[in-house]
Amino acid sequence: MLDEQTEAGRVALIGAGPGDPELLTLKARRLLHEADVVIYDRLVSSEILELARREAIVIEVGKIPDGPSWKQDDINALMVQHAGGGAHVARLKSGDPAVFGRLDEEMDALDNAGIAFEIIPGITSAAAAAASIKVSWTRRGRNKSFRLMTGHDVDGFAEHDWRGLAQAGAAAAIYMGVRAARFVQGRLMIHGADPDTPITAIENASRSDQKIVATTLGGLPDALAGAGITGPAILFLGLAPREALDVADRIDTTHIPTAEAL
Amino acid sequence: MLDEQTEAGRVALIGAGPGDPELLTLKARRLLHEADVVIYDRLVSSEILELARREAIVIEVGKIPDGPSWKQDDINALMVQHAGGGAHVARLKSGDPAVFGRLDEEMDALDNAGIAFEIIPGITSAAAAAASIKVSWTRRGRNKSFRLMTGHDVDGFAEHDWRGLAQAGAAAAIYMGVRAARFVQGRLMIHGADPDTPITAIENASRSDQKIVATTLGGLPDALAGAGITGPAILFLGLAPREALDVADRIDTTHIPTAEAL
Repeated sequence: MLDEQTEAGRVALIGAGPGDPELLTLKARRLLHEADVVIYDRLVSSEILELARREAIVIEVGKIPDGPSWKQDDINALMVQHAGGGAHVARLKSGDPAVFGRLDEEMDALDNAGIAFEIIPGITSAAAAAASIKVSWTRRGRNKSFRLMTGHDVDGFAEHDWRGLAQAGAAAAIYMGVRAARFVQGRLMIHGADPDTPITAIENASRSDQKIVATTLGGLPDALAGAGITGPAILFLGLAPREALDVADRIDTTHIPTAEAL
Repeated sequence: MLDEQTEAGRVALIGAGPGDPELLTLKARRLLHEADVVIYDRLVSSEILELARREAIVIEVGKIPDGPSWKQDDINALMVQHAGGGAHVARLKSGDPAVFGRLDEEMDALDNAGIAFEIIPGITSAAAAAASIKVSWTRRGRNKSFRLMTGHDVDGFAEHDWRGLAQAGAAAAIYMGVRAARFVQGRLMIHGADPDTPITAIENASRSDQKIVATTLGGLPDALAGAGITGPAILFLGLAPREALDVADRIDTTHIPTAEAL
């Protein structure tokens, strides 16, 4: 980075984590506290915003599903305007900015304007959700890969490798999957998925209003509707909350060899 | 949790993040500071351990590849012994404990011993690596899903859905993939992957000794050997560092519609 750029302001694209302010990183907290301008998404919690300095300019650029929302171009212009004027801008994005966060569009705008920036990773909501239900994304003997996928894309419900995902042992976190739940269910079952495959929905992971719904692929849409899950939620395919597991399903640690590779 | 369990000690299974102590969460730092006993993996950095109280018992249970190492059973027994004796134990695991962290084996041991525990998610190394090279795990128009996978499992080099991974636009983070690099290269190319597919290796992501190697699938083993990458590293399949991108490859933000779904 050129010195002139640094003097002309800069942007930190910061993962604000899933909501619990204690799941912010030390670096995110420091940069938030140092910022002259804070630009934040709707899902960033008020406890986190309180970490900004009193004299900072704090601007919400929320996108409300089906409601009024900021256009990405306007968010980009806002960052460029403030950083171009010499401000240290903290751009707070919920979760990890590199996971379904439209990070590239903001980086492109900053590069095009010659504004220096850095990225601070955050705890993505699926990581907080897994911790809440005490399961791993990966587990020996169950799955050696894990997918993060979106329920929606620009074209509507997103198409995926349903055949692979329908296989026993497949595990995935579906972001923005609540509205797509019936579509996901249909696609997976057409491709042979067991209707008893566990599905867990976690709404507002890590927040005080967190809600957990443990169900199966076959019961998914009804379970979501019955629980009133309408907000931002992670759907785990193939993962059940630990407390729902039969003790016999747990690993008997005495028979697991210690692998040198780990 | 029963009160008697809490009084009898407890364990926090804590993600210590990728190495940079500033990428610790506020919650991890607090629990580390409150712990009577700290049990940590080899990859947890010394700056993080300095956050423990001076009077805490601090024990390394490192697993050195091909070297002497703690058995998982002994680590489990150590946690149970201290927490069973009433201690607050901080079990520090590098990255996120739910990502290739053998978390289930430790949870099972604690449940079997009746020890209360909680899980604190951490920044997994692939998230820090993506931030370092300024790329997203997912990006509109490129990939709407992302895989985390291991290069090794208990049987040796791990088999995966190579056909899916070989397709254009597939993106994945391969953990413990350095030794498996030639195997991964061979499997992907047999399944038709383009030898020009970008691969980026990030060793010691977020640490002061971080090393980044941008190469292609065809050049992978030679590039790793040439750069002397031998330590813990993430291999990104399908992702190149942002600075290596041609400007024309970047998204032109003026033509991206604003999607309500995000």
